[in-house]
Amino acid sequence: MSTTEQPLHGLLTRDPAVVAAGAELFADALRDQAVPVADVEWRPPMDGTGEALATVLADPRLTEANALALERITSAEAELVRVAPASEALGLQRGEFLHSGPPLTWDRASGPMRGALIGAMLFEGLAATEEEAVERLSGPDISLAPCHSRGAVGPMAGVISPSMWVFELRDPVHGTVSHCSLNEGLGKVLRYGAYSEEVITRLGWMRDVLGPVLAEAVERHGPVDIKAYLSQMLQMGDEGHNRNRSATLMFLRDLLPHIVAQVGEGGRNTDDIAEVCRFVGANDHFALNLVMPACKLAMAAAKDIPGSSVVVTMARNGTDFGIQLSGTGDQWFTAPANTPEGLFLGSYGPEDANPDIGDSAITETAGMGGFVMAAAPAIVRLVGGDVDFALTTTRTMYEITLGEHPALQVPILEFRGAPVGIDAVAVARTGVLPQINTGMAGRVAGTGQVGAGLVTPPAEVFVQALRALADRVSATDGRTP
Amino acid sequence: MSTTEQPLHGLLTRDPAVVAAGAELFADALRDQAVPVADVEWRPPMDGTGEALATVLADPRLTEANALALERITSAEAELVRVAPASEALGLQRGEFLHSGPPLTWDRASGPMRGALIGAMLFEGLAATEEEAVERLSGPDISLAPCHSRGAVGPMAGVISPSMWVFELRDPVHGTVSHCSLNEGLGKVLRYGAYSEEVITRLGWMRDVLGPVLAEAVERHGPVDIKAYLSQMLQMGDEGHNRNRSATLMFLRDLLPHIVAQVGEGGRNTDDIAEVCRFVGANDHFALNLVMPACKLAMAAAKDIPGSSVVVTMARNGTDFGIQLSGTGDQWFTAPANTPEGLFLGSYGPEDANPDIGDSAITETAGMGGFVMAAAPAIVRLVGGDVDFALTTTRTMYEITLGEHPALQVPILEFRGAPVGIDAVAVARTGVLPQINTGMAGRVAGTGQVGAGLVTPPAEVFVQALRALADRVSATDGRTP
Repeated sequence: MSTTEQPLHGLLTRDPAVVAAGAELFADALRDQAVPVADVEWRPPMDGTGEALATVLADPRLTEANALALERITSAEAELVRVAPASEALGLQRGEFLHSGPPLTWDRASGPMRGALIGAMLFEGLAATEEEAVERLSGPDISLAPCHSRGAVGPMAGVISPSMWVFELRDPVHGTVSHCSLNEGLGKVLRYGAYSEEVITRLGWMRDVLGPVLAEAVERHGPVDIKAYLSQMLQMGDEGHNRNRSATLMFLRDLLPHIVAQVGEGGRNTDDIAEVCRFVGANDHFALNLVMPACKLAMAAAKDIPGSSVVVTMARNGTDFGIQLSGTGDQWFTAPANTPEGLFLGSYGPEDANPDIGDSAITETAGMGGFVMAAAPAIVRLVGGDVDFALTTTRTMYEITLGEHPALQVPILEFRGAPVGIDAVAVARTGVLPQINTGMAGRVAGTGQVGAGLVTPPAEVFVQALRALADRVSATDGRTP
Repeated sequence: MSTTEQPLHGLLTRDPAVVAAGAELFADALRDQAVPVADVEWRPPMDGTGEALATVLADPRLTEANALALERITSAEAELVRVAPASEALGLQRGEFLHSGPPLTWDRASGPMRGALIGAMLFEGLAATEEEAVERLSGPDISLAPCHSRGAVGPMAGVISPSMWVFELRDPVHGTVSHCSLNEGLGKVLRYGAYSEEVITRLGWMRDVLGPVLAEAVERHGPVDIKAYLSQMLQMGDEGHNRNRSATLMFLRDLLPHIVAQVGEGGRNTDDIAEVCRFVGANDHFALNLVMPACKLAMAAAKDIPGSSVVVTMARNGTDFGIQLSGTGDQWFTAPANTPEGLFLGSYGPEDANPDIGDSAITETAGMGGFVMAAAPAIVRLVGGDVDFALTTTRTMYEITLGEHPALQVPILEFRGAPVGIDAVAVARTGVLPQINTGMAGRVAGTGQVGAGLVTPPAEVFVQALRALADRVSATDGRTP
């Protein structure tokens, strides 16, 4: 009998070739009977994204828009071109403060954010006491805005005020500029919400000595290639979020002759210069504040591409987690931030941890940080997990990104490029959330760092973002703009 | 019928459990017939070692002696305590020169070694021209001795002369001291056999500025923990032989305030200090000359343990490769050195490479270098091979070492301790030779580095060493001394 007369006949006379999708039970049963089975991983898309996904996936612009985004991200360069006060570099006015994460009002701010804003008020002389600072911060005279709203980034509370000196980085390829504060070091510091006299005094020294000395050194040296540090740090066991020692030491090495040259005829005394060297060298995280704006530049290059589903921003303000997509302009998509889970310092525990905070998730957004944990396996001693987890995490991130960064290679994966260009569509289709590894701030202002761990964005932000992107697709009727 | 009456009967009534050793042909055949086979890796011992192995393995002191050696190696510490001229630190007399590797006479010396000795003669003012240097070096007035004969080590030609400043490291646990020259940097340098005016001038600057400035900095800082650098560099993608950047930058960071403090009242001018900073920072291999003596200290702690088969020295002088065992005192076991194979710089090729040279194999001897390639996978871009080779190499070295170094952890292997305590017995039994990765010197004096690659000791040295150890066992009749 031919198979057309008996269509199922073939099933009884030939070895079946089986493809299984969904519940593993069926595939397992077949395998137990020595039947070869090809597994297809399939799961329903993230709750609430089904309709939006259909719209976005039907947009004829999608593939090209995302390809363009990836090309811009990977071609972006990052040079440190100057160091200057935020009043100059960012035009920050008296009474204006930038902060990490999406837009935030004082009444919703968490402990560390409040502490950092109080400290900044004291530092700027806008208040003489904590009480005065709180009163004014609750009032109409003080303006708060996300660092991102000025193309800047700040770690943890990320507060930038006019008198603080900032790094200015430029992407010569796309003509963009980004800024970031100078890292204060470890322990009781403003970015963790501390505002004691010691903190304010240190901020003063950074304004009067550190900033100007670094500024002069950069002036003498010329632009410093920060992207090159990102490439090299991956060969030196650093991922750019929680491990930054190699970049810190390379930066110190490169500016050193120009720092030292300022002694004497350069106008600085030996003690000041020695202190600058000691301060930078002792802070393994100093280069975080260079890596972050470099990552910001890469993502800024991919902003505002109509139809693109690439995530250009991931940021937290200690209360909310916010993302922005390339194709949805400056719109923020926010939801309550998760609290990191991991390993604690001293006798701290989970109840001491503040919700996720800081613009440092820009590193993961640009393919660094948690996305290249495979390059920095020693990090599991800090954030928890085992080495296998570090390798698996990086491998998994390839499922939700558009491509591999040719300049950011992970040696242990045979120099495979870092997973870069987070696609909100892929996140929704797979349910895999971007993996961030981060420091943990104490929820009580001024506690400082209580630990380090792992965290993901709340899934909700991707639901909102895709719906907004779908709305824009519908609005244009898929017309090429 | 019972099995005692028919002993082979069981073979026909039960599933056989098969153990296969030797030729894989038999095991493969069984597996093809779905018979479970347990493979035992077995191979005959290294040619010529059978008898000696039997004697050494029968020595009742062996296990304890080796356990003691391992304990001493891993408990040794290493601190940089001073920087001083070799005439002071080593008591080197005018006309005395130390060199890398086992004992060597001028007539047998290779191109780079000759070039380095010529350069050292010019530097010491013992000759005004190359011709004069060669004439005197061939004569009776000049004394040559291995660095190792003074507990010192030197990379590549490893020439140390009285006026050269050296690092002095001390192991406070075992009371030993080790020395090493200061690293000149890359390119045309004495250790690669160059002796042009540029080389001599640089050596002069190192004598007049670099050495004294570092000496003063160490004096002000206090002892510098070098062992701590070894531990940390493994988390920073360095293995201590061909990759030393992290240790170099950590060293610079730690001494920096004390280097800078020497400007002005410290008696130094800004330019000198800036040049010291630039010189050290620009040389990714600067810390090699700290890592090497730290490794030497660890091995020195394990010297002269009667009956121990641990390899305490591996060194090459560009002509011969030599080893020393703990249980055979200062006796050298030598054979012609192999030539490294790997990747070449520029248009150089295999015909340009000199045989293996340098005391830097002390790193592998102490569990660093090639033994921890898994911690520095980026190195395969320099020496050849793929990342899998780097991981496999480290894993294989566990077969010929006594234990795992608790302070030298390899993150990617779940923080497993480095394979340490090379056992000559294991080398002979397995045929696995220690894997060294190394720079390649040009065979013509003054060429400089032509590449980097992989090399092993000639097997012959282990044959000689085991025979000598066996002779000593026989001489003592196994009596506990």
